[in-house]
Amino acid sequence: MRVLILGGDGYCGWPTALHLSARGHDVGILDSFVRRLWDHELGVETLTRIHPLHERVELWRALTGRAIPIFAVDLQDHPALAEVIGTFLPDAVVHFAEQRSAPFSMIDREHAVLTQVNNVVGTVNLLFALKDQRPDCHLVKLGTMGEYGTPNIDIEEGFLEIEHNGRRDVMPYPKQPGSFYHLSKVHDSHNVMFCCRTWGLRSTELNQGVVYGTLTDEIARHPGLINRFDYDEIFGTALNRFCVQAAIGHPLTVYGRGGQTRGFLDVRDTVRCIELAVLHPPAPGEYRVFNQFTEQFSVGELAEKVRIASAKLGLRVAVRHLFNPRVEREEHYYNAVHTRLLDLGLEPHLLSDSLLDSLLEIAISHRDRVREDVILPRVDWRATHNRRRTRPDS
Amino acid sequence: MRVLILGGDGYCGWPTALHLSARGHDVGILDSFVRRLWDHELGVETLTRIHPLHERVELWRALTGRAIPIFAVDLQDHPALAEVIGTFLPDAVVHFAEQRSAPFSMIDREHAVLTQVNNVVGTVNLLFALKDQRPDCHLVKLGTMGEYGTPNIDIEEGFLEIEHNGRRDVMPYPKQPGSFYHLSKVHDSHNVMFCCRTWGLRSTELNQGVVYGTLTDEIARHPGLINRFDYDEIFGTALNRFCVQAAIGHPLTVYGRGGQTRGFLDVRDTVRCIELAVLHPPAPGEYRVFNQFTEQFSVGELAEKVRIASAKLGLRVAVRHLFNPRVEREEHYYNAVHTRLLDLGLEPHLLSDSLLDSLLEIAISHRDRVREDVILPRVDWRATHNRRRTRPDS
Repeated sequence: MRVLILGGDGYCGWPTALHLSARGHDVGILDSFVRRLWDHELGVETLTRIHPLHERVELWRALTGRAIPIFAVDLQDHPALAEVIGTFLPDAVVHFAEQRSAPFSMIDREHAVLTQVNNVVGTVNLLFALKDQRPDCHLVKLGTMGEYGTPNIDIEEGFLEIEHNGRRDVMPYPKQPGSFYHLSKVHDSHNVMFCCRTWGLRSTELNQGVVYGTLTDEIARHPGLINRFDYDEIFGTALNRFCVQAAIGHPLTVYGRGGQTRGFLDVRDTVRCIELAVLHPPAPGEYRVFNQFTEQFSVGELAEKVRIASAKLGLRVAVRHLFNPRVEREEHYYNAVHTRLLDLGLEPHLLSDSLLDSLLEIAISHRDRVREDVILPRVDWRATHNRRRTRPDS
Repeated sequence: MRVLILGGDGYCGWPTALHLSARGHDVGILDSFVRRLWDHELGVETLTRIHPLHERVELWRALTGRAIPIFAVDLQDHPALAEVIGTFLPDAVVHFAEQRSAPFSMIDREHAVLTQVNNVVGTVNLLFALKDQRPDCHLVKLGTMGEYGTPNIDIEEGFLEIEHNGRRDVMPYPKQPGSFYHLSKVHDSHNVMFCCRTWGLRSTELNQGVVYGTLTDEIARHPGLINRFDYDEIFGTALNRFCVQAAIGHPLTVYGRGGQTRGFLDVRDTVRCIELAVLHPPAPGEYRVFNQFTEQFSVGELAEKVRIASAKLGLRVAVRHLFNPRVEREEHYYNAVHTRLLDLGLEPHLLSDSLLDSLLEIAISHRDRVREDVILPRVDWRATHNRRRTRPDS
């Protein structure tokens, strides 16, 4: 199949591109590289030294003989995007090309607006480009489990059968997102659902949990293919950040009471889930939702796992509870369904001691590159001006 | 109370400003006048000759002695907006300042993006300005009944108690909007709800039905205060359009089978509903939703009412069913709750023969101003390029 990966320079997009290329699909990458710009703006950097995309793609070709064309296009530029869709003629488009950090979106008004405009307009532009250039193409859209919030009932996969006053209907699952970023994904979901119903487009929304890990089978083939490993307060996800904190002997910082429970998955399962979605497209006009995670943990449980694994490696680390910079429930019911990808054949890589060991080893081996001042949270959900224009060690 | 009306030059904003001013509130109007620009772009015009806002406000002062300051500001300009909020210091902001036409948003990609960016960013800018300048201010936000779509269960006022797998929660009512415009209002709702929860803002969302009529007690005081009366395919609402078609002897054009059922209300009830919301603010942090309409009709029923009223005035008109340019259910269950405004004291002006007569008389007396070529629908929901850059009689 011809698969175009939007945001293929990123943490999930890059391993997805390689995974699909390795399985014989004709893969292209479209990316604006704006995320690399944001890293410079915020003074943060991946722990691993990632190479420019064109170098990584050349290396992949040298290793495998498989080409991955690069389209340096921003989704804000509709004519350029439409031209790529109309010439590459993808059977599936995998859409990772969004601003994907909740704290980034909460820095200030400018970052909130940037996030919502970038994500919403980018996706609207894509929907029009698909309708005009490639209406049968399968849109695989990355959503997030964070769209649902933390309701007091089970979280279903996108839709919910509701009985009310003696009547029944299957309705979109109500969304209660917790940041301007998560809101932007909810906006996207409504826009995509509408275009499937109105224009007959077909789409799978993958409401992904928090991804951890950095290696996939393909990335492990050569150090030059290495993936991002973000640990800072803006782009770092909880487990990666805890591993870095353990590696440098800092306490693991849990926001608030730590009872916040979320779905998690290994990046190796991310790439497999995308593949499964691509291999099993929905019918024309169908909009379906898969919840893409493999296990639920509370943030406190996750910190405890890292503390124990670190101790086995001789690292003595404490767990410290910080004032929660986010506005969220810290103790709550959480039970989210995630059976549709398992039904398609997903065999989860659950969070094991050996995976934790390997993550800790990556953090330890890159210990000299850790910037300590970017780890602790400075973006306060309750404040409207969290920007740091100067940085102490820049 | 100090009340700032955003979009106070418009069809609902202008009568609302006068109504609140007449009741002794200190009213200001903020408007960018961009709607007047869109009329020129599309070659459409209100049936009634409305005067520039500054003339209308001067006339109101001459008649009543009451001043209404005008702030010529676009919500896209956050610094200017924040300055107005910080100097006018409103107790309530009534937010009508959005692109409010579904067909406009479906013209093409540019109009879809314009609608979503204009509405979403304008509202986000307002939320930040309120949080920074006037956090106790009551945001009265105009939503639309169209956010709900046409579910097969009763439509509640914003929230729904759901029982699922033996557990219960009160959740936001699931939304199934039917155009890029209606989607923009759903996006707004999520953003406003989030800011109430996270920042402690207070807001009432008024999910308004289709408004008809043009006169209120205040506007009736002088012809120079006359309000908009839109009848074209882009900005005209069904009842106003039917009256104009009857006045010029054209068939009343019902889209599709005509079983599409919606909530309707008289513009005199719009202004009273806003007043009731302003007089009864929610608690800090509270986000509440009122469904703002007084009666439900199908489009077919509405056409039949106009046909009968026209016949009594000696106008013989037919009802013609057109191919439906919209993608919507044409026969469906519809039962929407609307008790919260009645509980606050709303006494509805139901659609009566005398109101229909007065609407028809306005249409008849302005018959010479009707542009016949702007009435029939040309914006097709299924197409992505509906723009007319040239017009036959321009």
